[in-house]
Amino acid sequence: MSDLVIGLDIGGANLKAARTDGQARSLPFELWKNPERLGSALKKQLRCWKPTRLAITMTGELCDCFETKREGVSTILDGVQESFPSIPVRAWSILFRFMKPEEAVANSLEVASANWHALATWLAQSFGGVDEAAFMIDVGSTTADIIPIFSQIPCPLGLTDMDRLKNKELVYTGVRRTPICALLGAEVMAEFFANAHDAYLLLGKTKEDNKDIQTADGRPATKAFAHARLARMLGGDGELIPAKETKKLAKRIFEKQRDLLVEAIHSVAATLPVEPRIIFSSGSGEFLVHEACKHSSFRDVEIRSASELMGKDASTAACAYAVASLEEEEWQNSAS
Amino acid sequence: MSDLVIGLDIGGANLKAARTDGQARSLPFELWKNPERLGSALKKQLRCWKPTRLAITMTGELCDCFETKREGVSTILDGVQESFPSIPVRAWSILFRFMKPEEAVANSLEVASANWHALATWLAQSFGGVDEAAFMIDVGSTTADIIPIFSQIPCPLGLTDMDRLKNKELVYTGVRRTPICALLGAEVMAEFFANAHDAYLLLGKTKEDNKDIQTADGRPATKAFAHARLARMLGGDGELIPAKETKKLAKRIFEKQRDLLVEAIHSVAATLPVEPRIIFSSGSGEFLVHEACKHSSFRDVEIRSASELMGKDASTAACAYAVASLEEEEWQNSAS
Repeated sequence: MSDLVIGLDIGGANLKAARTDGQARSLPFELWKNPERLGSALKKQLRCWKPTRLAITMTGELCDCFETKREGVSTILDGVQESFPSIPVRAWSILFRFMKPEEAVANSLEVASANWHALATWLAQSFGGVDEAAFMIDVGSTTADIIPIFSQIPCPLGLTDMDRLKNKELVYTGVRRTPICALLGAEVMAEFFANAHDAYLLLGKTKEDNKDIQTADGRPATKAFAHARLARMLGGDGELIPAKETKKLAKRIFEKQRDLLVEAIHSVAATLPVEPRIIFSSGSGEFLVHEACKHSSFRDVEIRSASELMGKDASTAACAYAVASLEEEEWQNSAS
Repeated sequence: MSDLVIGLDIGGANLKAARTDGQARSLPFELWKNPERLGSALKKQLRCWKPTRLAITMTGELCDCFETKREGVSTILDGVQESFPSIPVRAWSILFRFMKPEEAVANSLEVASANWHALATWLAQSFGGVDEAAFMIDVGSTTADIIPIFSQIPCPLGLTDMDRLKNKELVYTGVRRTPICALLGAEVMAEFFANAHDAYLLLGKTKEDNKDIQTADGRPATKAFAHARLARMLGGDGELIPAKETKKLAKRIFEKQRDLLVEAIHSVAATLPVEPRIIFSSGSGEFLVHEACKHSSFRDVEIRSASELMGKDASTAACAYAVASLEEEEWQNSAS
């Protein structure tokens, strides 16, 4: 059968695509700078893949190149449809179902930033227990989602970013894009000179990549430049600040992000009727999930990585994989 | 006498120029984006003024377009000299004296970010008392300086940004450029969607300016757009978040910046041997100085605005005016 569902997770800084067979691709793409180039970026990303259906989820609608989320959702869906005019497109909604583009645009808040919801829905299905509880903790480049699951469905208190931020189901912290000044406040310079990625480069949690220049200063993602970027946060530069100072700073950043997660985990746990039996971890910041759980009251709960459930490749684009799988399931159910 | 000393305060986002007769000019200029255009920007700024000497102070050397502060100081001084090849140039240093370009480049840390030092030195001279103490509190677009003055000279504990940041003589918070996420941390989205300027637009502390698009999203500096930008910080947008919510957020930003200043004032005051008799206020955030003093243990101390001492126009470029005046004084002393 040549049917190929592709899931797309369209973010503000990255495009992720996954097939239901587990193949996945990520492409850095600054949607907020070039919204008009989304279509061509997607074509490039899907090169050689011949989708028969596209399942969409997004967070890119919140970019401030769009005046409103409504405008963002509509522009993104237009971009997808114009680039793949003959292929059916549907977007996942927080109503636990897909919407066709026209419905999605009319109900933009229900498809806006619903990628966590698709992933949690997919993970919850794979977790057998009725009357049993679990968590999904996804830590990505920019944000962390802490989603309670009960009796095989996600049961968050909040569904929009606004509400999720308030009750800590959304913690706006991630292992790559988070500015250091957003983590440490007045302790450091309130400039965008470095981000969390620099801390994890120095701590050896993330591999150096000489070709990666998606950094605060456009210089490579290496330890030497990460040191210089972090030194700047302290009012110095790479020459003036000794390596042990920036290492100490990196450790403080790690601990601060861990503590934000621990606080959120406890806060979200309080909404569950029973203790979680499993914690699903995912995202490029999975190491932070482990660290946070270890420092929480759930240190003995089993952590199961999304990569065990969907495969390692797919887990690099977990939300895209989830939305593709949900679409395929629904299609198969409707056909049978 | 046709002698005209011009003071230049070369920042990362603004160029300020002042003459000793009190005329002043400010020019938004993103040095960090266009370091190679500094010379032509300065020529534009000084058009029709015919300086005979240039007195320089800067903070622009900390921009991350420069790998080090050393490189920054040297590039900036080169830019000035190339644009005004026949005019003597000197840069103020934290050693309480001017340095010629070659000496300044060789001692770059002593001229790096010394603009506060020039202003404090100038203000301290105008404050008569031996064995008397004062404060200078300058709140600008990006940073605040809280400088103790004793017996007519500034006597800060720290001289470099690194040390000043640690002991709170430098508080990296200002009324325009400070990102909201640096002030409120995990309470808001860790994105650069809005800055302090938006809060003060909403609170009516800063005038609307339809032509000013030096904002986070490049849309005008009006209340309506400030509302939309702040709404985004809460995970919403201008349509989803009611005006009273962003107004509340703006008030929290105001209070947070005030509290940071109060804390710094108390911390710096503890280094003075006697109680301050006067607080000198300056910068575009003078309203915040008043608010902070009112909430500190110095609520009864007289606040004297730099604009009373140097004139209103000059006070919009207070550091540039100070450095011009210091240069002229030294010149006159050496001539007499």
